Amino acid sequence: MLIKDIGGEFGLIGRIKKNYTGGQVPQHGLSVGIGDDAAVFDPGDRHVVVTTDMLVEAVHFRREWSDFYSIGWKSAAVNLSDIAGMGAVPTLAFVSLACNSSESVENLDRFYDGFVDCLTRYGARLAGGDTNTTPKNLVISITQLGQVAPGQAFTRSGARVGDQILVTGSLGSSAAGLALLAETGLPRAERLDKDLVNLHRRPQPRVVAARAAAETGLVHAAMDLSDGIAADLQKLCAASGVGARIASEDIPVAESVVRAARIVNKDALTWALQGGEDYELLFCVAPGDVDTVKAAIQETGVPVTAIGEITKSGFRITIADGRADVNLTSGWDHFRS
Amino acid sequence: MLIKDIGGEFGLIGRIKKNYTGGQVPQHGLSVGIGDDAAVFDPGDRHVVVTTDMLVEAVHFRREWSDFYSIGWKSAAVNLSDIAGMGAVPTLAFVSLACNSSESVENLDRFYDGFVDCLTRYGARLAGGDTNTTPKNLVISITQLGQVAPGQAFTRSGARVGDQILVTGSLGSSAAGLALLAETGLPRAERLDKDLVNLHRRPQPRVVAARAAAETGLVHAAMDLSDGIAADLQKLCAASGVGARIASEDIPVAESVVRAARIVNKDALTWALQGGEDYELLFCVAPGDVDTVKAAIQETGVPVTAIGEITKSGFRITIADGRADVNLTSGWDHFRS
Repeated sequence: MLIKDIGGEFGLIGRIKKNYTGGQVPQHGLSVGIGDDAAVFDPGDRHVVVTTDMLVEAVHFRREWSDFYSIGWKSAAVNLSDIAGMGAVPTLAFVSLACNSSESVENLDRFYDGFVDCLTRYGARLAGGDTNTTPKNLVISITQLGQVAPGQAFTRSGARVGDQILVTGSLGSSAAGLALLAETGLPRAERLDKDLVNLHRRPQPRVVAARAAAETGLVHAAMDLSDGIAADLQKLCAASGVGARIASEDIPVAESVVRAARIVNKDALTWALQGGEDYELLFCVAPGDVDTVKAAIQETGVPVTAIGEITKSGFRITIADGRADVNLTSGWDHFRS
Repeated sequence: MLIKDIGGEFGLIGRIKKNYTGGQVPQHGLSVGIGDDAAVFDPGDRHVVVTTDMLVEAVHFRREWSDFYSIGWKSAAVNLSDIAGMGAVPTLAFVSLACNSSESVENLDRFYDGFVDCLTRYGARLAGGDTNTTPKNLVISITQLGQVAPGQAFTRSGARVGDQILVTGSLGSSAAGLALLAETGLPRAERLDKDLVNLHRRPQPRVVAARAAAETGLVHAAMDLSDGIAADLQKLCAASGVGARIASEDIPVAESVVRAARIVNKDALTWALQGGEDYELLFCVAPGDVDTVKAAIQETGVPVTAIGEITKSGFRITIADGRADVNLTSGWDHFRS
């Protein structure tokens, strides 16, 4: 079924409103939703947090390696991860989508299914957006709002010399999944390690762990890891005016990532340091508070590991096994290539 | 100069932050701006209004008919117009931009110049966004926030039977400018009527007039006109559960639009009814309040005209001169073509 078969743009908007904005989801103070010039909501006595992220076909995803449910899920997840990186509670989401006019309605339904499932899982809801045509590549642009008590938002700029650096989960899994897809194609990649492929296609934003850490009141600085820890930690250091030292042997890397690296003849540590798209969280915490923050995060079922410390200046990664250094200055940069 | 020459994505973000977020613009409660996972602001005791709009090269604009300053201006203006359509005060803007990695930095500078000039003119400021690559067409996605006192947002759903329908400015000018560009090319179109071409490329959102109308407290329903009044008024009627009757001879059309129609052998009334992109405002007001609302709008220097009334049901446009009816059911629809 094509979009023109359901009444074009307004049929599509009506379908989105009907199928994806009702149900038992929180209202988040929304008083005017889809169908007017803009949405209106009352954030109450909390601060509003806003993030926006665009996903472009052939740049951020390929339809031959993914599916529309996963593309929808990931579009929500990468934005929720930014809200988690602020220690905030996700609230309302807005989706602008541009697709070719011969895109099938079923594909778009699956996209919104995945998008709304991810939102719902983390307590957020769809509140508006825009639909457009594009000559070729699908483009998705998300704005995600969140709320946080005044003064409690995590920033990148509060790290202090001597802070321990904590990271949730493990790193390199998304890059491993992507490499399996790129090197062996979708059917073989799924047979080799479907979990890694899914960690790439449907990342889990650390919304709950972030709130648990925020509630301790002990986090000096935090961010989500989207471009690889080598690049992202340097951004945090620049924002805080500090340096950092991490040890490669402390970086959590799943055994399945090491196995995948062997299969495609790549380096698991490079994936962990520079692969990006893990959507784990990085926290800077005073040494005396590490146990408290770790315990709070672990109580949400999320592993957390200390990988190094904040220093006065410089950026050093100690590579344990004496192998040739990876290039530590680069992460993902859209315009470098 | 290419984007990679200024240090890639992070050079570009730094440039945007440095050049386009300082100055004597209102802060709107912003406490964390560009450079963190998300922006944080405190809307105070007002409701937050959110709108989002995407512009795709070759669909919403063509670089051969426009310039990057105008593309930036229009990207801001179409979103500010939605905020005006809610009667709200525009506050923070977020821009996600995807361009080919060989797009020139000068073009992007001009884009942000136009974008921020338009924001500044209407009291808004740039607070964040996202930068991406795209294989081909430039894609711009804007989220614009605004504030309004609780219960004072204009909606499309409050029109009452007997209300007079008011429209600001005049209609069809943007369509006329676009037709001159399409039929005669840029150089000739500018020689024929540069004002019309600029009304198409750099629309003026009716932010000030909207606030003046809002402050009367007498507006039952309102919306901005982006898809042509024939389609837009029907959306308002559907949202309010009412009908409407307007008379073609009452619709304000500039003399220059009539002249342009003669030049390219098109119909000025069709442009006015269905052309779209005028970004004027439509208000529904009780007959006894029309003079008060008109006076408030006119005091801002914006003309306003009564063009018809809200009825119980149906949608009728009386064509004065007895010519063949235009097709009144369609406005701009991205997926019809």
